[in-house]
Parts: sequence; C-alpha cells; structure tokens
Amino acid sequence: MREAYHEELDSIGEGLVEMANLVGSAMGRATSALLDTDLQLAESVISAHAKADDLQRDLEDRAIAVLARQQPVATDLRVVVTSLRMSADLERCAVLAQHVAKLARLRYPGQAVPQDMRRTILEMSQLAQRLMAQAADVLITHDLDAALQMEQDDDRIDELHRSIFQHLMDDRWHHGVETAVDVTLLGRYYERFADHAVSVARRVVFLVTGEHADELATDPPTAHTETT
Amino acid sequence: MREAYHEELDSIGEGLVEMANLVGSAMGRATSALLDTDLQLAESVISAHAKADDLQRDLEDRAIAVLARQQPVATDLRVVVTSLRMSADLERCAVLAQHVAKLARLRYPGQAVPQDMRRTILEMSQLAQRLMAQAADVLITHDLDAALQMEQDDDRIDELHRSIFQHLMDDRWHHGVETAVDVTLLGRYYERFADHAVSVARRVVFLVTGEHADELATDPPTAHTETT
Repeated sequence: MREAYHEELDSIGEGLVEMANLVGSAMGRATSALLDTDLQLAESVISAHAKADDLQRDLEDRAIAVLARQQPVATDLRVVVTSLRMSADLERCAVLAQHVAKLARLRYPGQAVPQDMRRTILEMSQLAQRLMAQAADVLITHDLDAALQMEQDDDRIDELHRSIFQHLMDDRWHHGVETAVDVTLLGRYYERFADHAVSVARRVVFLVTGEHADELATDPPTAHTETT
Repeated sequence: MREAYHEELDSIGEGLVEMANLVGSAMGRATSALLDTDLQLAESVISAHAKADDLQRDLEDRAIAVLARQQPVATDLRVVVTSLRMSADLERCAVLAQHVAKLARLRYPGQAVPQDMRRTILEMSQLAQRLMAQAADVLITHDLDAALQMEQDDDRIDELHRSIFQHLMDDRWHHGVETAVDVTLLGRYYERFADHAVSVARRVVFLVTGEHADELATDPPTAHTETT
C-alpha cells in the first residue's frame, strides 16, 4: 500500500516535470516564431496547447485519486495539494506561450517586435525558459540553493520588463501605437510566465522547509512594475 | 463527525463568498480611484490587499485541515479540492484590483484614462464587478442558470476588450504611447478579473453536474482577443 502510494506520488511529480519541460519548450518555440516570423511554427505552438490542457487534467485526476484512495495526512497531503497548485501554474504558462504564438500569427508576415526591442524580448524569453528549466530541476532535486538562485533571474526579468516601459515612454519611441501595444503585452506574458516558474520552485521550498520563500504571490509590483 | 464535517465545508464556502465580495469591492474602489484620480482611495485598495492574502491562506489551511481530518471521498473530495482552486482564482483577482489602483497612483494627479475611454473602462469595471457578484451568488445557490447567464456578461467584456484594441490601433488615436500602454494593461486586468469570476462559476457547475461548462481555461483568445 505504502509502496503503491509513493509510486503514485512520484508519477505526479514526473507529470509536473514533463509539463514544465513542455511549456518551457513551447515558450521557446513561440518566441522563435515571433522573432523569425515563422507562421508554421506559431500554428504548431497554438495547436499543441491542447496537450498541456490534457496533461493538467490528467495530473489533477491523479492527484484526486491519490487523495481518495490513500487519504494522505501531514506532509504527504501538502505534497498532493501543492501539486494541484503547481499544475495550475504550469497550465497558465502554456496559455502564455500560446498568446505569444498568436501574436506572431496576428502580425504575420509583419514583425511584431521592432529591431531595437529584439534583444530585450529574446533575453526575456531565454530567462523565462531558463527559470522553467530550473523549476523542473527543483521539482526533481528539491535543491533549495537552486530555488534561491532563481530569484536573481527573476529580478533580471523584472528589470527587463521595466526597461520595456522606459523605452516605450521615451520620446524617441517611433514605432507607433500598435507596436507599443504588442510589446506591452509581450512583456507581460514573459513576466507572468517567469512568475509562475518561480512560484513552482517556491512551493517546493515550502514543502521542504515549511517556510514560505519570500511570499508566494509573485506578481505584485506593476504600474508599471514600480521602479526599485 | 459528519455534522462537524459539513459545518467545516460550509465555512469554507462562506470564506469563498467573503473573498469574492472583497475582491469585487476592491475592483470597484480601484476603478473609482482611477477615474476620479483619488490617491487616498488608491492607497487604501493597495494596502487592503494583505487582507485577501490572509483570507486565501486561511481558506487553504482550512481546506487542508478538512482533507486531513475528514478524509472525504468522491464528491466531497472534489468540493474541497475545487475550493482550493477557487481561492487561488479569487486571490488573483485581488492582485488585479491592486494593479488598477497602482496605476491610479502612478499617474496621480494626472488621469490614466482619457475622456473618450472612460465609458469603456467604467463598463468593463462594472461588468467585472457584476460577474464577481454573480459568482458569489452561484457559490451560495448553485444556480446553474445564473452561471450560464454569466457567459453573456463575459462575452460583453471580451467585446469591450477588443474595442479597446480597435480604438488604440485607429489612426485617430491621439493620446500618445504612455496612455496606450496604460489602457492596454487596464483592459487586460479587467478581462482577466472577469475570467476568474467566470472560472469560479464554472467550477461550481462542474461540481454540481460533473460536466465542464465549456472548457475551464477561460483565457485563450487574445493577440489581441481574436475577432469573432
């Protein structure tokens, strides 16, 4: 009984890692579609979203089955409940990757991202993917130092996000309103994606230590991500 | 035992309703602060956010306590698990109301919303609050018709959200980039708030009928909320 139970718990953990890999990759591909104006790639990210949805529902069903059959208490119970929260975080990331891909499609064959913003968008995307890969590692290793290191990458994302607004508000902005709107939303998509990755890692920290690593609610600053 | 159990479940339900009322009211006050350039009101919404956070953590702890002590199965188990998801939806709404209030503060004593966008923002805010009030009702009454009616208000929010983009992309837009960025993010905040309210009601429908009312993932359209 105990044996089967831990197998089920492990398989939920593996499902979360699979989902983290999936959404990290989706965000990378969506960004390529965006920066390379690749319509086919954009469409493939958009249609692949169903898979993340299925994975999430499957994880939720399995978590509920474990609760019903094994009736875990104490830490084990927290693990299962937390896995539900994490799968919701990851599903949200799949939606955000889809939003990026849809923007690539909307502007095709044009470019949503002007030349002087490409580097910023690319770096945000890379950091977001890296955070998600780190979150997957933390899910596997429970390495608290790795979780703490993520805060730095997250700070860098926030800095880039602020720099987008500074650039937009600059009198020298000459790309027009449509591009300003596109870039505003893109910045928000990457930043939210990164927040969810950090949130997954923080939940692991909480499970391991019983202490909230900082606060769990990652979003707060904004309007527009208040300068530090 | 059964008795105590249902009391605990009821009290979680009451907590969710309390939270729905709190965030609905926060969004209303944030919008007043925004449209009336009322700094004090904005500050009060920003600092009241801690209360929603506490409520959510308290609800989560109570849900976990019920799982541990009562070990519910079948429908009862789904109710508790779903309440965890709903409290996360509502906590997110508190953050979104806070974002609106922070924008009011950022632009103070200026106006973030230009005259010709006030009606749209006001209507989005009113619909968002109405949806949240309806979600609270559905939590209490389990009235499926009321839940279905919410889809109409949600469609109207989406329509208004699209109209914001149309207005922004219009050649006659003359409010500059800063205001375009502000209005873009505001539109997204209201739309996400409404999505979470609808999501709460859909989760109730799922609990009552066992069938997903449409899909639970409410966000998908965008880039920029694809025309119908």
